[in-house]
Amino acid sequence: MDEMGTGIDVDAAARRLHGVAHRTPVLTSTTLDERAGGQVFVKAENLQRSGAFKFRGAYNKLASLDPGTRAKGVVAFSSGNHAGAVALAAKLFGIRAVILMPTDAPEAKVAATEGYGAEVVTFDRFADDREALARALTEERGLTLVPPYDDPFVIAGQGTAARELLEDVPDLDVIVVPVGGGGLAAGTCIAAAAATGVKVVGVEPAAGDDTLRSLVAGERVAIAVPQTIADGQAVATPGALTFPINQRHLERIDLVTDDELVDAMRFCFDRMKLVAEPSGVCAIAALLQGKVGYGRVGVILSGGNVGAARFAELLGRDVERQ
Amino acid sequence: MDEMGTGIDVDAAARRLHGVAHRTPVLTSTTLDERAGGQVFVKAENLQRSGAFKFRGAYNKLASLDPGTRAKGVVAFSSGNHAGAVALAAKLFGIRAVILMPTDAPEAKVAATEGYGAEVVTFDRFADDREALARALTEERGLTLVPPYDDPFVIAGQGTAARELLEDVPDLDVIVVPVGGGGLAAGTCIAAAAATGVKVVGVEPAAGDDTLRSLVAGERVAIAVPQTIADGQAVATPGALTFPINQRHLERIDLVTDDELVDAMRFCFDRMKLVAEPSGVCAIAALLQGKVGYGRVGVILSGGNVGAARFAELLGRDVERQ
Repeated sequence: MDEMGTGIDVDAAARRLHGVAHRTPVLTSTTLDERAGGQVFVKAENLQRSGAFKFRGAYNKLASLDPGTRAKGVVAFSSGNHAGAVALAAKLFGIRAVILMPTDAPEAKVAATEGYGAEVVTFDRFADDREALARALTEERGLTLVPPYDDPFVIAGQGTAARELLEDVPDLDVIVVPVGGGGLAAGTCIAAAAATGVKVVGVEPAAGDDTLRSLVAGERVAIAVPQTIADGQAVATPGALTFPINQRHLERIDLVTDDELVDAMRFCFDRMKLVAEPSGVCAIAALLQGKVGYGRVGVILSGGNVGAARFAELLGRDVERQ
Repeated sequence: MDEMGTGIDVDAAARRLHGVAHRTPVLTSTTLDERAGGQVFVKAENLQRSGAFKFRGAYNKLASLDPGTRAKGVVAFSSGNHAGAVALAAKLFGIRAVILMPTDAPEAKVAATEGYGAEVVTFDRFADDREALARALTEERGLTLVPPYDDPFVIAGQGTAARELLEDVPDLDVIVVPVGGGGLAAGTCIAAAAATGVKVVGVEPAAGDDTLRSLVAGERVAIAVPQTIADGQAVATPGALTFPINQRHLERIDLVTDDELVDAMRFCFDRMKLVAEPSGVCAIAALLQGKVGYGRVGVILSGGNVGAARFAELLGRDVERQ
């Protein structure tokens, strides 16, 4: 399925994930269709194992490792969904996972990661030397680093969500995806390149527009660490591997504000009965604002990991605003 | 499919609902399996149109009416999901719907019903004469009454959820369903009777155990109007049509407390990323308490209509309790 010559194999990832990842449902809502001005098909990756699409990439990476290497265990840096995804994938392989999480990571995501049996090591984003920590764990303890997006197996795994969507819904005009580090977008681009005439549109939070800025500049640029409720997309610069793929294939990037993200979370709650986290609804938020403008639209609802208190706080904020 | 000789036709209902009702997904959770002590398949009827299984019965009833009669419009009494279901079904047929809702109906359900274009008439549960109101609307205005459960077409429509579940998941040992007026349970019993060896277990809130008491007594008994957070199951006596079916076919009734319902709502939120209302999780609550004890278990998550403020209040109550 690699029409783009990247060597990234989404078909092989789909075979590895078969029977392990959930084949998540594709959901529809006439109200969403009306607001988006098109026919919308929601790939509900919040219903994926570990609560986000990230499980696909993490599991595909672990499944691709040499068994001897894998048996020594893995390590990942993540404040969020990648942490839970690697922890669950490691649990399924019966291997050790050490997850380095910043001290300000969302509580629900720390609890979920520990719940999967991973060893969580917290670090101070500002004071600790992240590279030294990683070196200590990979070189000294023999663990394999599982990158959150800049890895061909991780990208291939993320691409399986769009691959399933394209199998389930024929004749899509476009697939709309959230963009953080760019792994989901790049995997979607590769999966979509195998289908005819399907465009891919990325959506970033307005405060975290590093990929948009990089596309405009024609090269990867870094922004200050974004201040946005979309914690999964608080990325300062696109990936070295993901960016060229997205640069070549993405139709464009749309931006959404934090208020638009909250509106979309509320829409998912009220009308679709789905729990979605801020970065999870990024692409749906763009649709609800009528920012996409295609006929048959696939959209990835990418994650649902948000604690009950935070969820109530965000939706309450929406009530006050109205 | 009517092995029980009731004349209630679930197959015909399935044909009428095809392409109109959502074929809701069947979801799984390894954590749910662990807690339930079995392999659990969740039929997510909270993702049904109008946010609850009730759409199936209401639409089947309207579709079965003589077109001339239907064109005059319909009326329903409901504090909740039946209201939204009839309103949406009427909208799809382009006919008028008048919904009589008690003054203390949940705000989110009133808003949803009005959102579908129905005329909502409120009445005082204690002061107004409900029968006189119904007579005025049916006899004087020519509207057809759509009963919430005691109707063969409504029961047949509700049975299509279990029919789909049995198609999607072979070799179920049991299907566990919430019991309010008994329409979903009766429809499930009829659908399950066509399969081999599938038992049906009903679950009531402990405070609203009218069906359990009636089964024990061997006849329909009435209890005081139940005080439970499961507003969709606050029924004082089983239906005249539904009870004999449930009496003949239900394996048994389990009871769950309001605290167990809140625990199940939180489980659906945290682990399944699903918005569920108290009466919607009744059957899942029984599974989480290990009260069912079968191998391959189908369960109907029957509804997700709960306002954000009420949802936060209920889940907050759970936090305080822990």
